[in-house]
Amino acid sequence: MKRTKITDLLKSDACGADVDVCGWVRTRRGSKQVTFIALNDGTTIHNLQVVADIEKLGEENLKQVTTGSCIRVSGKLVPSQGQGQHVEVQADRIELLGAADPNSYPLQKKGHSLEFLREIAHLRPRTNTFGAVFRIRHHMAMAIHTFFHQKGFFYFHTPIITASDAEGAGQMFQVTTQDLKQVKKDEDGSVNYDDDFFGKQASLTVSGQLEGELAAMGLGAIYTFGPTFRAENSNTPRHLAEFWMIEPEVAFNEIEENMNLAEEFIKYCVQWALDHCRDDIQFLNDMFDKGLINRLESVLTDDFVRLAYTEGVRILEDAVAKGHQFEFPVYWGADLASEHERYLVEEHFKRPVILTDYPKEIKAFYMKQNEDGKTVRAMDVLFPKIGEIIGGSEREADYDKLLQRIEELHIPMKDMWWYLDTRKFGTCPHAGFGLGFERLLLFVTGMSNIRDVMPFPRTPKNAEF
Amino acid sequence: MKRTKITDLLKSDACGADVDVCGWVRTRRGSKQVTFIALNDGTTIHNLQVVADIEKLGEENLKQVTTGSCIRVSGKLVPSQGQGQHVEVQADRIELLGAADPNSYPLQKKGHSLEFLREIAHLRPRTNTFGAVFRIRHHMAMAIHTFFHQKGFFYFHTPIITASDAEGAGQMFQVTTQDLKQVKKDEDGSVNYDDDFFGKQASLTVSGQLEGELAAMGLGAIYTFGPTFRAENSNTPRHLAEFWMIEPEVAFNEIEENMNLAEEFIKYCVQWALDHCRDDIQFLNDMFDKGLINRLESVLTDDFVRLAYTEGVRILEDAVAKGHQFEFPVYWGADLASEHERYLVEEHFKRPVILTDYPKEIKAFYMKQNEDGKTVRAMDVLFPKIGEIIGGSEREADYDKLLQRIEELHIPMKDMWWYLDTRKFGTCPHAGFGLGFERLLLFVTGMSNIRDVMPFPRTPKNAEF
Repeated sequence: MKRTKITDLLKSDACGADVDVCGWVRTRRGSKQVTFIALNDGTTIHNLQVVADIEKLGEENLKQVTTGSCIRVSGKLVPSQGQGQHVEVQADRIELLGAADPNSYPLQKKGHSLEFLREIAHLRPRTNTFGAVFRIRHHMAMAIHTFFHQKGFFYFHTPIITASDAEGAGQMFQVTTQDLKQVKKDEDGSVNYDDDFFGKQASLTVSGQLEGELAAMGLGAIYTFGPTFRAENSNTPRHLAEFWMIEPEVAFNEIEENMNLAEEFIKYCVQWALDHCRDDIQFLNDMFDKGLINRLESVLTDDFVRLAYTEGVRILEDAVAKGHQFEFPVYWGADLASEHERYLVEEHFKRPVILTDYPKEIKAFYMKQNEDGKTVRAMDVLFPKIGEIIGGSEREADYDKLLQRIEELHIPMKDMWWYLDTRKFGTCPHAGFGLGFERLLLFVTGMSNIRDVMPFPRTPKNAEF
Repeated sequence: MKRTKITDLLKSDACGADVDVCGWVRTRRGSKQVTFIALNDGTTIHNLQVVADIEKLGEENLKQVTTGSCIRVSGKLVPSQGQGQHVEVQADRIELLGAADPNSYPLQKKGHSLEFLREIAHLRPRTNTFGAVFRIRHHMAMAIHTFFHQKGFFYFHTPIITASDAEGAGQMFQVTTQDLKQVKKDEDGSVNYDDDFFGKQASLTVSGQLEGELAAMGLGAIYTFGPTFRAENSNTPRHLAEFWMIEPEVAFNEIEENMNLAEEFIKYCVQWALDHCRDDIQFLNDMFDKGLINRLESVLTDDFVRLAYTEGVRILEDAVAKGHQFEFPVYWGADLASEHERYLVEEHFKRPVILTDYPKEIKAFYMKQNEDGKTVRAMDVLFPKIGEIIGGSEREADYDKLLQRIEELHIPMKDMWWYLDTRKFGTCPHAGFGLGFERLLLFVTGMSNIRDVMPFPRTPKNAEF
């Protein structure tokens, strides 16, 4: 008989039907006569209750049906007498697919710390928490693809291995096929890359934006969704060495349309989560973050505040003048810290804020320069609990201004000729932004450590699994 | 006024309406009185015809409206008198957004070789061919996500950087933060990784399957869709150093259900292409591969042949006996070459073939061993023109058998403990497969070089852009 998924069974009204169901045993309890098995197959946060008559099925047969074991159950779907479910399965037959020795299986009934679960990341998809998180992770990816697809954007794969480090967004991992025991060198001691795979120094990308711009200026509107890398030695709950980014880029969009797109996009994702992942979010709300659902609903209702950086700094300076204490100093020209961003969002406006027109010195070379000569058309979307969740800008479309900025910052022209070509040939206004996928997931799941929303996190000294 | 996309305009019946449209000039022709501009904005293979009265708009204004330039046109949508389109735009105003100097812009009107276009991969999204290919690329990605989402699979991100090389699928790129000028070494000359980012040797993944299995044995059914890497020095039209793979993995599926899934999956993708990318496929059919549409339609109609490797070899040996010449020898135990696969598909059966039960020596360690002691439950899907497009198997679920194979092949246990744990704790039958995304695109676009379906291909000595 064909197996039915537990998520479908729990919604079924076909009481009396014969069913076949597989899954992993979460708990087992009962008496000498009857045993109750909570079975989960990963399709939902909810377990199916399997009721087994011990005499009928044989005590010996049930001996290895312990927490973590995998079984196939054939039986009848019946209305449940117990609380918490409206149907259950009365087992006619239980087949043990795989045992899990109670003395060595690490996921026993008792609760486990998130720290402990990180050490057994290969097993944590079997827990309630990570089942919920990874189902939500899937749904957020699907929301993203659906959003852009419906708007006529094209998903574009920018390269992972790159020979340019022009974006300057952070330290990079080097990619090589040289034997590190005997790296080939020139007479002056510099590394000789002639025999390396790419014939030159190559690294892992920190952003697909520059290549995304190339595509947008031919295909019109594109988005990337791929892994990016930072070799920064940051052991914080907010940083990963390997993470996924979404970067839309749109020809003919200016900063205003870019802000509209970002706001619509992130509201669409949050709405999708509430519509499609309600049970999982409810579980995480109850277990980890009682304010989660409220926070998700609140970002949907209000328009985001749109505010110039200069105004934002004024508000923060006012707060300091009135006695609010920040760890880091606030002044015009400073890169805002998470505490500043969260003050604006959580204390001052009590809703998300899009901060624009930052000083050009603290932003990337490719951002469109304003006429004041001091600021650029950057836009950061600031969120409660998270701080910056999206960073973007209108891009500098003018060849001469872009070239000047590249020269000021001493970015090597060998890495830039192709990027400049888009401004040389048929340039146009365009804009885009980047969303860190795991930042979005922190917001949507309410988890507080980024290692808990990435299946196998890579951090300093950690590349296990 | 809000800009309208050309794909929408061309479908519009709103003749007489004022419209605003942006794009890049593909060609310009005409007389002294009137000029015809073929405008493309990347949203469709078709150009919009813009008709400009030279006296009205001013010759000086139109001077820089040359191939490759970017313009904004305001005008009226009218029925077209000319052939090839049913509407066109009569321009009231043309604004030059970006010029493209005819003396240096590389994409002039004349046709360009695909080889030449690879050298200017940053501009090729502006050509008909690559516009079509990259729109199809988007659609195939969307088809894949939609297919698995509708079936209740969860998209799962397996790690890109890995410290294990257990899959043994090919040579790997090493990832390091060491200064290659002075790699740290121990006294015995071996590399000391203590100060390297991960504290040990790390590489780019060749497959997400092993980690995908971990997820499937908790979440039930997952799929990956991410970049994978091979550092093989293969300069062929079929190999990339960086490519994207899709790897579904399903708990409780056995080989038969795995074959069903693979066949349904690939037919779904091809059907999606025909439904959503008809114009682009028609263009590629006419320009590059007159058999393309026929080939796409043909794989939809027939059931795929399902055949044991042993039978397949017998057919090939028969063919040799009857005088057919292959470059590589055919015998039981040989890894089939593309020519053999294509003979079975194109000559013998004239439809796709799923070949199963390969000799264990030529397949990976994790495949389920058959009772004959000689073969494993592998399945390769073989396609016309492409050869192998999907490779998969039922996985060995038995701890002892898997361990034995790992030991026979001397795979280091330090890389395998977490993988073996899934067989130790609640093991179950499961199966999956891998599809090379670019192989699928070769099939669906009819392009013959894999460098032409990847935006910025990475190959030996080539990591430009």
